[in-house]
Amino acid sequence: MQLIDAIKQRKTIKMFNNQVQISREELTEMIKLAQLAPSKANLQPWRFVILDQAEQKQKLLDKVAFNAPPCESASAVVVILADLHYEKLLGDVLDHSIASGCLHQNFRENSFNFLMGVHNTLSPQDIRDQVLIDTSLATMQLMLVVKEKGYDSHAIGIFDRKAVLEVLEIDSERYAPVMLLAIGKAAVPALPSVRLPTEYTVSWNDGKQFRK
Amino acid sequence: MQLIDAIKQRKTIKMFNNQVQISREELTEMIKLAQLAPSKANLQPWRFVILDQAEQKQKLLDKVAFNAPPCESASAVVVILADLHYEKLLGDVLDHSIASGCLHQNFRENSFNFLMGVHNTLSPQDIRDQVLIDTSLATMQLMLVVKEKGYDSHAIGIFDRKAVLEVLEIDSERYAPVMLLAIGKAAVPALPSVRLPTEYTVSWNDGKQFRK
Repeated sequence: MQLIDAIKQRKTIKMFNNQVQISREELTEMIKLAQLAPSKANLQPWRFVILDQAEQKQKLLDKVAFNAPPCESASAVVVILADLHYEKLLGDVLDHSIASGCLHQNFRENSFNFLMGVHNTLSPQDIRDQVLIDTSLATMQLMLVVKEKGYDSHAIGIFDRKAVLEVLEIDSERYAPVMLLAIGKAAVPALPSVRLPTEYTVSWNDGKQFRK
Repeated sequence: MQLIDAIKQRKTIKMFNNQVQISREELTEMIKLAQLAPSKANLQPWRFVILDQAEQKQKLLDKVAFNAPPCESASAVVVILADLHYEKLLGDVLDHSIASGCLHQNFRENSFNFLMGVHNTLSPQDIRDQVLIDTSLATMQLMLVVKEKGYDSHAIGIFDRKAVLEVLEIDSERYAPVMLLAIGKAAVPALPSVRLPTEYTVSWNDGKQFRK
């Protein structure tokens, strides 16, 4: 599928065909493409809890404001999380870089110390901002890849974050929820939407020219 | 360009051809495609300060850690911002929805009151999270569109946020910086990178199966 078509055709779907199943192989393939997104220092803070069992999806239903139908009818619901303790994986990231030929073994210790040094200068708010940003980049790629594979999605931003993490046994100290993404085959057409003109969203060469 | 190719070929470029110019028309077209990203309640909190004057780009150089060369050689550098006071545009968003036929005039007041009601329940941290997430979604689309148009990019996450906002006269109370995105034509090949296997990033049906 052409990129421009994926961008234009990706729309929020309110109801999916609940007879459609998506295999774990296909879901995993989508995640692999999504996580080619860029990430600060390649730290890859994105995490995905994929619900493909009806029983687990059901647990979300009274915790999702305004959006139970897409959750209920989706083939899978992905709880997208940002890892506030991404540094726990730093050694493994470097080992994978070495194994793939992207980093020479001799630089491992220096790289580790440098990156931990940068990490240690960050405030909790800096860390939260950064992992939310990087995880959202991968999330956007996931939504486009879903379209490419012939499926549709519904990004759910309004949900009881605390309750969802608790019911799915997700460590709320470690992981910050980004969104729920319901994935399936559309059973209804998408609602149309419109965007503000760029006079509202673009300013040239300084920050003074936004319309409001 | 195929979506999958754009995802695979988008890579961080360390140095651009500084002879390449990109017109404002083309940059604006890229932003219009980027901002087709989904946004909670269609509030569109993304803002873009586009630097295409050498003098303004120069102001960034000593404020960007490790990444001066891409900034200096880029055709344009986009300061990507999340609007913490997106609600100031809510009336205009609704008016545009009405003008385009997506919303009936009779529902304007109810929609406004409902959305302001939701807004007023949010904490400052909730608002910050939400605008960073939505802005990052549009940012990812922008990076892919840049590739589609035959250009390349470098996402810069490490910079002196306070100094950059100040020197570009961007209101730091209102706007949270997401990243700097240098855009141009690659003058050097991209560095290879590798991603963690999905055992680290995917857990099925609960939050207990991440490798670390």
